[in-house]
Amino acid sequence: MPEKILEEKLRRMLAEDIGQGDITSTLIVPEKCKAEAEVIAKENGVVAGIEEAGVLLESLGLKFEALVEDGEEIKPKQALMKIYGDARTILAVERTLLNIISRMSGIATTTRKLVKKVRRVGYKTIVACTRKTAPGLLYFDKKAVSVGGGDTHRLHLDDMVLIKDNHIKIAGSIEKAVKIAKEKASFSKKVEVEASNVKEALEAAKAGADIIMLDNFSPNQIKKAVEKLKKAGFLGKVLLEASGRITAENIVEYASTGVDIVSLGELTHSPKALDISLELVKLVV
Amino acid sequence: MPEKILEEKLRRMLAEDIGQGDITSTLIVPEKCKAEAEVIAKENGVVAGIEEAGVLLESLGLKFEALVEDGEEIKPKQALMKIYGDARTILAVERTLLNIISRMSGIATTTRKLVKKVRRVGYKTIVACTRKTAPGLLYFDKKAVSVGGGDTHRLHLDDMVLIKDNHIKIAGSIEKAVKIAKEKASFSKKVEVEASNVKEALEAAKAGADIIMLDNFSPNQIKKAVEKLKKAGFLGKVLLEASGRITAENIVEYASTGVDIVSLGELTHSPKALDISLELVKLVV
Amino acid sequence: MPEKILEEKLRRMLAEDIGQGDITSTLIVPEKCKAEAEVIAKENGVVAGIEEAGVLLESLGLKFEALVEDGEEIKPKQALMKIYGDARTILAVERTLLNIISRMSGIATTTRKLVKKVRRVGYKTIVACTRKTAPGLLYFDKKAVSVGGGDTHRLHLDDMVLIKDNHIKIAGSIEKAVKIAKEKASFSKKVEVEASNVKEALEAAKAGADIIMLDNFSPNQIKKAVEKLKKAGFLGKVLLEASGRITAENIVEYASTGVDIVSLGELTHSPKALDISLELVKLVV
Amino acid sequence: MPEKILEEKLRRMLAEDIGQGDITSTLIVPEKCKAEAEVIAKENGVVAGIEEAGVLLESLGLKFEALVEDGEEIKPKQALMKIYGDARTILAVERTLLNIISRMSGIATTTRKLVKKVRRVGYKTIVACTRKTAPGLLYFDKKAVSVGGGDTHRLHLDDMVLIKDNHIKIAGSIEKAVKIAKEKASFSKKVEVEASNVKEALEAAKAGADIIMLDNFSPNQIKKAVEKLKKAGFLGKVLLEASGRITAENIVEYASTGVDIVSLGELTHSPKALDISLELVKLVV
Amino acid sequence: MPEKILEEKLRRMLAEDIGQGDITSTLIVPEKCKAEAEVIAKENGVVAGIEEAGVLLESLGLKFEALVEDGEEIKPKQALMKIYGDARTILAVERTLLNIISRMSGIATTTRKLVKKVRRVGYKTIVACTRKTAPGLLYFDKKAVSVGGGDTHRLHLDDMVLIKDNHIKIAGSIEKAVKIAKEKASFSKKVEVEASNVKEALEAAKAGADIIMLDNFSPNQIKKAVEKLKKAGFLGKVLLEASGRITAENIVEYASTGVDIVSLGELTHSPKALDISLELVKLVV
Amino acid sequence: MPEKILEEKLRRMLAEDIGQGDITSTLIVPEKCKAEAEVIAKENGVVAGIEEAGVLLESLGLKFEALVEDGEEIKPKQALMKIYGDARTILAVERTLLNIISRMSGIATTTRKLVKKVRRVGYKTIVACTRKTAPGLLYFDKKAVSVGGGDTHRLHLDDMVLIKDNHIKIAGSIEKAVKIAKEKASFSKKVEVEASNVKEALEAAKAGADIIMLDNFSPNQIKKAVEKLKKAGFLGKVLLEASGRITAENIVEYASTGVDIVSLGELTHSPKALDISLELVKLVV
Repeated sequence: MPEKILEEKLRRMLAEDIGQGDITSTLIVPEKCKAEAEVIAKENGVVAGIEEAGVLLESLGLKFEALVEDGEEIKPKQALMKIYGDARTILAVERTLLNIISRMSGIATTTRKLVKKVRRVGYKTIVACTRKTAPGLLYFDKKAVSVGGGDTHRLHLDDMVLIKDNHIKIAGSIEKAVKIAKEKASFSKKVEVEASNVKEALEAAKAGADIIMLDNFSPNQIKKAVEKLKKAGFLGKVLLEASGRITAENIVEYASTGVDIVSLGELTHSPKALDISLELVKLVV
Repeated sequence: MPEKILEEKLRRMLAEDIGQGDITSTLIVPEKCKAEAEVIAKENGVVAGIEEAGVLLESLGLKFEALVEDGEEIKPKQALMKIYGDARTILAVERTLLNIISRMSGIATTTRKLVKKVRRVGYKTIVACTRKTAPGLLYFDKKAVSVGGGDTHRLHLDDMVLIKDNHIKIAGSIEKAVKIAKEKASFSKKVEVEASNVKEALEAAKAGADIIMLDNFSPNQIKKAVEKLKKAGFLGKVLLEASGRITAENIVEYASTGVDIVSLGELTHSPKALDISLELVKLVV
Repeated sequence: MPEKILEEKLRRMLAEDIGQGDITSTLIVPEKCKAEAEVIAKENGVVAGIEEAGVLLESLGLKFEALVEDGEEIKPKQALMKIYGDARTILAVERTLLNIISRMSGIATTTRKLVKKVRRVGYKTIVACTRKTAPGLLYFDKKAVSVGGGDTHRLHLDDMVLIKDNHIKIAGSIEKAVKIAKEKASFSKKVEVEASNVKEALEAAKAGADIIMLDNFSPNQIKKAVEKLKKAGFLGKVLLEASGRITAENIVEYASTGVDIVSLGELTHSPKALDISLELVKLVV
Repeated sequence: MPEKILEEKLRRMLAEDIGQGDITSTLIVPEKCKAEAEVIAKENGVVAGIEEAGVLLESLGLKFEALVEDGEEIKPKQALMKIYGDARTILAVERTLLNIISRMSGIATTTRKLVKKVRRVGYKTIVACTRKTAPGLLYFDKKAVSVGGGDTHRLHLDDMVLIKDNHIKIAGSIEKAVKIAKEKASFSKKVEVEASNVKEALEAAKAGADIIMLDNFSPNQIKKAVEKLKKAGFLGKVLLEASGRITAENIVEYASTGVDIVSLGELTHSPKALDISLELVKLVV
Repeated sequence: MPEKILEEKLRRMLAEDIGQGDITSTLIVPEKCKAEAEVIAKENGVVAGIEEAGVLLESLGLKFEALVEDGEEIKPKQALMKIYGDARTILAVERTLLNIISRMSGIATTTRKLVKKVRRVGYKTIVACTRKTAPGLLYFDKKAVSVGGGDTHRLHLDDMVLIKDNHIKIAGSIEKAVKIAKEKASFSKKVEVEASNVKEALEAAKAGADIIMLDNFSPNQIKKAVEKLKKAGFLGKVLLEASGRITAENIVEYASTGVDIVSLGELTHSPKALDISLELVKLVV
Repeated sequence: MPEKILEEKLRRMLAEDIGQGDITSTLIVPEKCKAEAEVIAKENGVVAGIEEAGVLLESLGLKFEALVEDGEEIKPKQALMKIYGDARTILAVERTLLNIISRMSGIATTTRKLVKKVRRVGYKTIVACTRKTAPGLLYFDKKAVSVGGGDTHRLHLDDMVLIKDNHIKIAGSIEKAVKIAKEKASFSKKVEVEASNVKEALEAAKAGADIIMLDNFSPNQIKKAVEKLKKAGFLGKVLLEASGRITAENIVEYASTGVDIVSLGELTHSPKALDISLELVKLVV
């Protein structure tokens, strides 16, 4: 995303936290006081948000040096960025800056962990997030998943046709719904269908879906579905996504079923923030 | 917050998720199709975000009935809201709506749990959050803490003077920093000082701080600090806040030290979303 | 797109035209004066923008009745909408309202004409627009194409992977570029490759592209490309889009080559506005 | 218009086209890759939009060199601008940039052509546009007309008093409407009256209008009106504008009638975009 | 100005005052509590801002009844509006609402006083304000002047050509500056020239200016200028505006010189707010 | 306030004044013309708004040198700032720039005068403003008060709990209202109570209010209230604010009563702008 567009999102975040200004720093920090600060990791993880942090800092007239790149593994006490400039501004932006890096790094860390878990036992299954992000943080949450090695899935509702149970009810049948989508959606869009059992999965494949989401299946149910689809000659022609019920605990079991993608809401709706802090290392009053 | 101001925040969240529109529903759901939907809890918890959800729904021309009030305890399968109106719009707003209620309810649920834990053993200690929220979600996260029975702490940087280590370094001493704040900050503001040891806590109390934050103290260290402050005659004259290192596990231990407030970042930076879904219960094509 | 989001776009358009207010109507039209107005077609065409017009009118507190639906064919003197309400507001919004309907109807009319031209001689070829819209009018221009029966193609840059000549140069080869895209892009995205000759088209097909854009080919060159791709067994497995040089004059010739899609920039970058006017039919001072 | 205000308009255009980001370039173009690009004319015309393009490029951190100035005549293959900087950003902004220059140059080109046509046969008649622009593009469309040598007419509704048929109906008569306007409008505003026949034109002149718009008159009818106004002693005291029915074909005939201004909606509601492209000429990965 | 556009300006004002919400009313006023309130004058004056207040109230879902119209003379204790609705919302909007009505009424009151002063002694001189408003309140301040019977002068910089000393310096002479303006400015614009002495005033008149601003002249100097312009035959052909040094004290003296317009900055840059308050008259908890 | 957030507020002010652009300067000032200008005081006063002016200038690409600091006393003919850059931009921003500095300096000047008046006779009483600012100018007006040596009081409604008569009515009594506030408001907030007589003041003090506002008391009534509160042992434990009826004339009398704070609405709702102008001192065409 071009920096200037990102900058607007970031500045809105900052504005909310600032209110009419940082009254403490304005009172106590002299007007021309310059500072040097470091962003420091407090625990192990995968860093994300360095790019976003840089855009925010620059937009406030602060200089910075990124000591790591998004996606790198970091350790406690490791310095992630150096920041130089007006001391009041550094103190005013501190919390917003850390909130961004902490959340994004938390998401990237968990994503990386799950991807590794799946790869370690030899599966190539894609680990994807969903649209269950913190409200308003779609861009940041999905970017962090991507930094961690996960798949961003739909970025928004105009991204792909995803036919869910309610759409099927309204259309009358999977076949009808897919037909409409194939005929009327732009050729540039894939069509995914949510199936709640094997029968529906087969129906979707026959109707010409590009992707089938096996929703709330147990690993065993998925294995059976995969077999049936194989027999019917659809393997390799349609992508299979397992979704619902998948957690850090059972992700390998789901990956072992032969699906192409496993997707988890918890990657973005309940991430654990990574502990990261900012320290002033020099002050020139 | 007056609805119209809240509405703008909510609509920005929706806009990000919608992109150029919900292409699936536009294709498959007929134009005048009306629907009735229910927001349904999938697990136990304390509900929050019903007010915000209502503002979002109304702003989109949808009607709704709230079946619970923010702050109520809810159970799996319990219907929280009924929604009526244009089916396409309901489907387009579904995810944003659930993301808001899920996150806010998750925060309220954890807050209530911690407050109860503290009350159960007889302490009146205030359980507060910090400014470590998801970036841009300050209002929603703090509101959810409040719904759960917690204290919102500073809403933004112009809210209260909070003198931290860096401010003290710059001012030269706690005494000097508090003096400046007392003289120059508006009379309408409280002055809090972050102390990293007992000596600093006493210094802050002498200097006239309204609140002292005992930062990263162990429960034992806090007990000692409380005793010293008592001896010096400051108890009841200055509020004491324990902050840093506090978790769901040790919160009672911290509360038992006699501080007035315990504050935790994890309430808002790493909340577990509550599982909540939306179901179409009726369709009039 | 939910009305409220659309409303913001529409109101910004209006605001630009209004400046500090319609000084003529404020001077001459009495404050409580009510009016009834009609939007009237002045030439034959396909109407579009009625939905958008309605959102704009309602957002200004005006009532309206749509006498046609987007996509209908209209004739000179045909009334398209009736508008009721504050006379000053109707006069202030008149020009913005007509500018929207005229442009969108102009685009829909041309699109319909080209689609019919292609269908009349028996081709099912999709007629698509491009991202060459009036700047800032992407949503409106693409919506109008869709109303006219055309395909909207990519809605924005995050919609589909479209590998162009510059990307190929940077990646080193089509094969490499497609490989990166297949591995790293979300599974939810299609991958299209722009080919400037038959060899590149084959390379793209082999690399696994979902769509191949035959860019600036003559109809003959396209025919040859189609044959080669057929021989190589790719027909039916990859979509073919002809783009560049296509006009209202030669569109059938291009459609006859066997491609799945023909796309034209002129649909949206140089549309002829449909002549539409607004007339006050009643005044209650 | 100060750059920063223009920048906001331009960035909103870009944001709509970008969505969550240019996924193709992000995948394929390496992060630090620099590029040099040229904006190149593909046909003859008058260039416009170079100033706007420059503001957009600079706001994204790209450097540029304008090789032509707005208003210059350009030829096929002529380079209009050189652009230097981050390759991903150049590719992301390409389409929005070209959409702006193409539309504005198309408008400037047609305007210049019509002005020349009128001048060539010796008339000094002003060629003006109307408020029939693409919705939301008032500034850009009018600026392009100005670059082409045309008159921008009213910039918005608070610009000049323009009394139309509906206002006359409401006021009771032209005389009354002009009287109100003269008495109550700011002295800084001109008053124009739309006349639908010679009688009305005379009435408006007598009432003291500064400008009279002869609306939907044939060239002959205008000639008669001009004569009558001359006889009545109004020539030179009131400006005469011919509007409605004027096209590129008959513009000279209208200009020959002796009016001061001819105004055409088609200049801005149906312009033909000028063909302009962007080419990467150097890449430093 | 259409309500919705005004509403956005008003809501931004409110948002600034509200911060994260009215914490006092949220704590103390029960959630469903309804109230009836009255806006009450505390001193004599001319009311303005009732229209704006109404738009603000309606946009917040409050009902109201305007008991006076903008421009009416009001007395102490007179009720201006009745407001009904949610008590919390009424209390939250109270200050913003009163700030708007107080400022606008203060401006209208002073304007009316000056206009009357001039009329009382028989002059028809227009009393105009300038662009010296409170920053960002151009619309509101000028609207209030208009309500008070004054002239709004230029609404913004694109409104009229106003050639000032600096422009004259750059152009080389008044004659040259006016010539450029006459040739290149839109025919829809008047051209005003700022003259700093009689010679310049004559030069401007000869060059064809529509209006001449006699800047910082004493009343005597103006009288001489008027005579000279009369002799030269320009009276009635060019409007004369006296500006600079004019105050409530000397306004009649300036009006007596025969100028058409007197303009004063103090009308809008230093208005005295009218004392107006809001009282809750009924409460339904 | 970080510059970028301030910049947005400033640019919105400018945009309103600019409309579609400064047509005069665009016509007459050559495109690359550079200028040097000075902001010059025309009367004695205390300057404010230099910081804001600087942010505005920089955001437009203009360079400047501040010759005074906010809060300095200035004299007629004193240069306050030097500005360098594009002549058209300087002329376009002139009025907005001066409007900001004039208003802010006017407020700072009056504030300083009142503070000095109080200090001169030996009182330390805080001179505070209220929320009665120009609508939308809260930040600027309060900042100017602060520059003048006054207290900003509540910055917005979430700043402090301020229990007014209506809240008391609703709660049932002062005691109950304060109790709710003490229990439910964040510990970070002070609680102020508006008392309309001595009895209420005592009740508020007993209930535990942090601040008591003696509203619309005469100086004598305040003296009595102070005595009673002293007798009851509350002096030094609760802050006392006199508000209502206080003017530049009687401020010393109020200060002499022993209250801690005197607050005046007129500081911000009816300030006299300081006369300040901009002059071009050099031009490089």
